Amino acid sequence: MYKFISLKNGLANVEGIYCDGVNAGLRPNITQGDVAFIRSDTVAKIGAVYTTNRFQAAPIKHALRYGKVFESNFILMNAKNANAMTGQKGIEDIEEILSKLPKELNLVNPVMSSTGVIGYRLPKDKIISAFDKLNWSAKNSDATAHSIMTTDKFKKEICFEVVLPDGNSFKIAAIAKGAGMINPAMATMLCFIVTDAEVPVEDIEPLLEDAVSLSFNRISVDGDTSTNDTVMLMANGKSGVYDKDAFSEALNKITFELAMMILKDGEGSNKVVAFEVTGARSDEDAQRAAIALSNSLLVKTALFGEDPNWGRIASTIGASGIDCDEETLSIYYDDLLIYDAKHRELDSKREEKAYKVMKQDSFKIVCDLGLGEGKFTAYGCDLSYEYVKINAEYRT
Amino acid sequence: MYKFISLKNGLANVEGIYCDGVNAGLRPNITQGDVAFIRSDTVAKIGAVYTTNRFQAAPIKHALRYGKVFESNFILMNAKNANAMTGQKGIEDIEEILSKLPKELNLVNPVMSSTGVIGYRLPKDKIISAFDKLNWSAKNSDATAHSIMTTDKFKKEICFEVVLPDGNSFKIAAIAKGAGMINPAMATMLCFIVTDAEVPVEDIEPLLEDAVSLSFNRISVDGDTSTNDTVMLMANGKSGVYDKDAFSEALNKITFELAMMILKDGEGSNKVVAFEVTGARSDEDAQRAAIALSNSLLVKTALFGEDPNWGRIASTIGASGIDCDEETLSIYYDDLLIYDAKHRELDSKREEKAYKVMKQDSFKIVCDLGLGEGKFTAYGCDLSYEYVKINAEYRT
Repeated sequence: MYKFISLKNGLANVEGIYCDGVNAGLRPNITQGDVAFIRSDTVAKIGAVYTTNRFQAAPIKHALRYGKVFESNFILMNAKNANAMTGQKGIEDIEEILSKLPKELNLVNPVMSSTGVIGYRLPKDKIISAFDKLNWSAKNSDATAHSIMTTDKFKKEICFEVVLPDGNSFKIAAIAKGAGMINPAMATMLCFIVTDAEVPVEDIEPLLEDAVSLSFNRISVDGDTSTNDTVMLMANGKSGVYDKDAFSEALNKITFELAMMILKDGEGSNKVVAFEVTGARSDEDAQRAAIALSNSLLVKTALFGEDPNWGRIASTIGASGIDCDEETLSIYYDDLLIYDAKHRELDSKREEKAYKVMKQDSFKIVCDLGLGEGKFTAYGCDLSYEYVKINAEYRT
Repeated sequence: MYKFISLKNGLANVEGIYCDGVNAGLRPNITQGDVAFIRSDTVAKIGAVYTTNRFQAAPIKHALRYGKVFESNFILMNAKNANAMTGQKGIEDIEEILSKLPKELNLVNPVMSSTGVIGYRLPKDKIISAFDKLNWSAKNSDATAHSIMTTDKFKKEICFEVVLPDGNSFKIAAIAKGAGMINPAMATMLCFIVTDAEVPVEDIEPLLEDAVSLSFNRISVDGDTSTNDTVMLMANGKSGVYDKDAFSEALNKITFELAMMILKDGEGSNKVVAFEVTGARSDEDAQRAAIALSNSLLVKTALFGEDPNWGRIASTIGASGIDCDEETLSIYYDDLLIYDAKHRELDSKREEKAYKVMKQDSFKIVCDLGLGEGKFTAYGCDLSYEYVKINAEYRT
């Protein structure tokens, strides 16, 4: 119905959007960028969804003074320092930094977004000194995407041109960071989406919340939720084009693909697995089981070991507190029946097939509870030695 | 007030209690025992606390037909096979196995307890053939404790003689297994406690539930809860002695020490950490935060890395959904202040001290929320490469 055309160079494609990233020396001995911006050359609308962590970081508290949807034309970003647990001083630091941005940018409600270590004041001078190096008229999506990375192994950047049946089109693009501390409700990450679609102000928040609930809130790397999670959508309307269904589909597509990229980059992860729970008494039950599966250490290590130990799947469902019954449960790895009440033991033929399924880079585990119509899919990854290594050594 | 005397040889000390364990070939190429029993030469009372997992294993369903407290003189145990997710056949297998026990044992309500892999029928013939090898008049606590081990690195066995002020005494002893799949509510493990104290039937269940809530329900290795968790208390009254306070204290002490042994044996763990949450709005809030801390992968890997990254502690509390405030929170490692609103950044002097605390085999992390009187302590351990290795390779 709508045509989605993938475009290179991410944010750069969107009309009126400028961005750049430079190295301000926030990460010792690393030449990659660490301070970046995204701006619109006209005042845009920004909608945001933030972490549910009670210790919201200073940049979130600062941005929330404008409400959940607000007029703005500027987002400043930094890596390495989360500006979290920094109290009132953390907010004052943001105000001071933003006040040093060039007057000629005609800033309206500029906001900031940070990621990195918790508990340290921002290195204000270093960040402000980066302002001389940033090119405010650049469309440097690559440097911007790189500048928000922390333990990410690759940049996450995506852009579509969406062509409507009448031939009109708009563009939507996004960058994201995130590899660890990923949890449903919501995934710990930063994501900045920009579009030149003419999105009405009343559509911004509901469409963004839907998109987040279908993407970032369904992925889990390690069950932890950070202080800084932020998804922002900046819409400047410069294309003059809008179609609600097309925009919603594009927004869902872009956030889902970014969520899958984050999972693939899950710290030390090798596989992406969809946990599809069906036949539950309610969608809430299905969600609880699917999320428990995506978070279970025993499931994750069995995925890493490529061991078709379905007992860990069953045990995790049983422990999730939902209504379930071993007589009505069935478990499939892709299309392969692994367990039902008539096939309780894995014979060698099915076990052989199960090993093959598990050797894939991605597959699904379907758990049909056989009790009702409730369903939910969550996405997870395996847990490897590498995860422990990255997280034992992070910060130092 | 009461004298607790530690005795060697565990279960063997308790009057009228006999036990043994032998190798029935359930674990290929391993000579360690895998089938064991505990019996009383008079009919005793058994109280039990079982897993909250909805997929309770067949031995639990079988034992539950007698209620939570029942008369019995015999417990049969096996390792390697959990007899879980085996349906009605799993229960029939238990009935058949128990019916083959020697008649001269005068069995009253014999029960079974199993641990191991989920989803396979018990090897009935092998287990029954072990009956010829077991010595029904043995007091072989060591072999019994070894026979219920799975990934445990050491046996867990403990015995006290409890001397009352009047000089009378009773004995209480226990064995346990558990190293992985440990989670509060409740810890995945088997624990068999025997005593010759003359415990009134009405005291058995409440005292056992109290003891479990203060011990096994406060430890976490990996946040998973198994299908087979069982704590059984067998009291045969043969000492003719009882004092409720003394018995309760002894039961709490024995279960707490076993819980700490399980944590020390936590798969690949190197440290035991007490997460003491105080100053919460309620005990429930404190419990939620303490358990979240003991389960957090990011906290556990930071413990392994001996990294005083208190931001992960704060972030986990913030994500636990309880009421908290960065202005009133304070965090201590042992007695060392790590964070409060006046000391947000860790200076190098305190950081140096923090490294020292974290190098210990065990220490406490105290989080005072500064909001009320609620408190709870949970116990956890670090997460190492070894955990991933053990769990990626288990079963195969």
